[in-house]
Amino acid sequence: MSDPKHDSANKAGLRPNGRPRILVVNDDGATAPGIRALADAMADLGEVIVVAPDKPQSGMGHAITINAPLFVEELASFGPGIPVYAVSGTPVDCVKLARDVILDRPADLVVSGINHGSNSAINVLYSGTMSAAMEGALEGIPAIGFSLLDYSMAADFRGAQQAATHLAQQALAHGLPKGTLLNVNIPKGAPESIRGMRWCRQADAQWVEEFDARTDPRGRKYYWLTGRFQNYDEGHDADETALKQGFVSIVPVRYDFTDYPALEGLRQTWRLPDAATPS
Amino acid sequence: MSDPKHDSANKAGLRPNGRPRILVVNDDGATAPGIRALADAMADLGEVIVVAPDKPQSGMGHAITINAPLFVEELASFGPGIPVYAVSGTPVDCVKLARDVILDRPADLVVSGINHGSNSAINVLYSGTMSAAMEGALEGIPAIGFSLLDYSMAADFRGAQQAATHLAQQALAHGLPKGTLLNVNIPKGAPESIRGMRWCRQADAQWVEEFDARTDPRGRKYYWLTGRFQNYDEGHDADETALKQGFVSIVPVRYDFTDYPALEGLRQTWRLPDAATPS
Repeated sequence: MSDPKHDSANKAGLRPNGRPRILVVNDDGATAPGIRALADAMADLGEVIVVAPDKPQSGMGHAITINAPLFVEELASFGPGIPVYAVSGTPVDCVKLARDVILDRPADLVVSGINHGSNSAINVLYSGTMSAAMEGALEGIPAIGFSLLDYSMAADFRGAQQAATHLAQQALAHGLPKGTLLNVNIPKGAPESIRGMRWCRQADAQWVEEFDARTDPRGRKYYWLTGRFQNYDEGHDADETALKQGFVSIVPVRYDFTDYPALEGLRQTWRLPDAATPS
Repeated sequence: MSDPKHDSANKAGLRPNGRPRILVVNDDGATAPGIRALADAMADLGEVIVVAPDKPQSGMGHAITINAPLFVEELASFGPGIPVYAVSGTPVDCVKLARDVILDRPADLVVSGINHGSNSAINVLYSGTMSAAMEGALEGIPAIGFSLLDYSMAADFRGAQQAATHLAQQALAHGLPKGTLLNVNIPKGAPESIRGMRWCRQADAQWVEEFDARTDPRGRKYYWLTGRFQNYDEGHDADETALKQGFVSIVPVRYDFTDYPALEGLRQTWRLPDAATPS
């Protein structure tokens, strides 16, 4: 994949009033290498502000903190002009706090990640990375979540950075339709091994859980959630397929969860009670 | 609304091998009145097993517990033949543990709720109630989440119970398409005030956050998440409209989050890099 950082960087400068403002969030926490890699990649494109959980929040889905107060702490900058804020909450809390408390004007783009590990297929449901992006989209801001298929803290983020730079430029230039955000997953490995990018749909897959049962020192049984990912979908346009073939997968995701195709069939099959008759 | 419990209860008995098995979950915790109301409503339809968080988990979205072990405790039965298990985790954890550890054969139906408070419109994104139902759907089981527009612990659940009974019967009789679950919201008030049920789509709405900033005894600033719900959607088929008009809203929800309508436009507008050229 060619380095997109140098061939269309000017598109990000279309705005008349200065550089675009890019909010960088994640779910692995403010100290994870992935978010630093993402902030670095964004630094050429605009004004970068990092707001991230103060501890890992993987698997938090679209959780919000409603029964505890939230603390915000400014950490050491990631580099010149890149402030970093740590929030004692979830990824979604970070986006909400950024908008209402930390930023004086809204972001032009929300990027989330780079997640340490895949958020392809149904992993999007559990993903704090994607929920943070979704929260940005809910606020009407173009939003993209990036995830690298490598859990290692020493992962090579260069390919993911190139993809992030390119797609952030496209988002700044073209925007995204209202209600749509992007779920971008990047194959593991060196940038040279990435074959390109592909528009995809969410693969039909499942986690097959295998709880690991143990007994604690007090004799109480407890369970660790484990499991293996099972893909059922070999379609060319499934994100799993693209990733397996060495492509970056890009799935447009919407936050309107209505199953429109199912509506008509259900209307015809299910019997609903007639209008009110007091019982 | 007539009491559907007595006019088509036999449909639930279509299965040749005994009564259907109904898993009851929620996000308000095993001691919330709403889950007891739901379990009671299901008791006429099949074998009921309750598996719920051991403490309130509202706003947990599709969170799962990956960094802590899970404990399961059997609580006092809700009634003859209704076992109740409390799990030290999230609503989604409950469904996973139910399937893999607690139940010897899969459930035929997963019902979640009755939530104390609305999960209409975009609240579905944040809802542990709906995530538990979604996890059931992911396992290929018909699944419905029920939420009552009344936060009170002393709420009148009778209208919600009637809706739950009716819709559970329909689900047992007709099933649901693969990939689809239902988000059912019930207006507040006595059952007689409910005007009927309506198939709906997720209304276009937003939470406008207003963080309440305070200072703790050590001088640290902190924030409570508050906000007001803002509906932008007056469409007849929007769930907010149905609820406002006194109808139970039923939104088919899918867990394939792919934004298919957006795919083609993005493909044509955004420029993706060509196939790999080593950089």
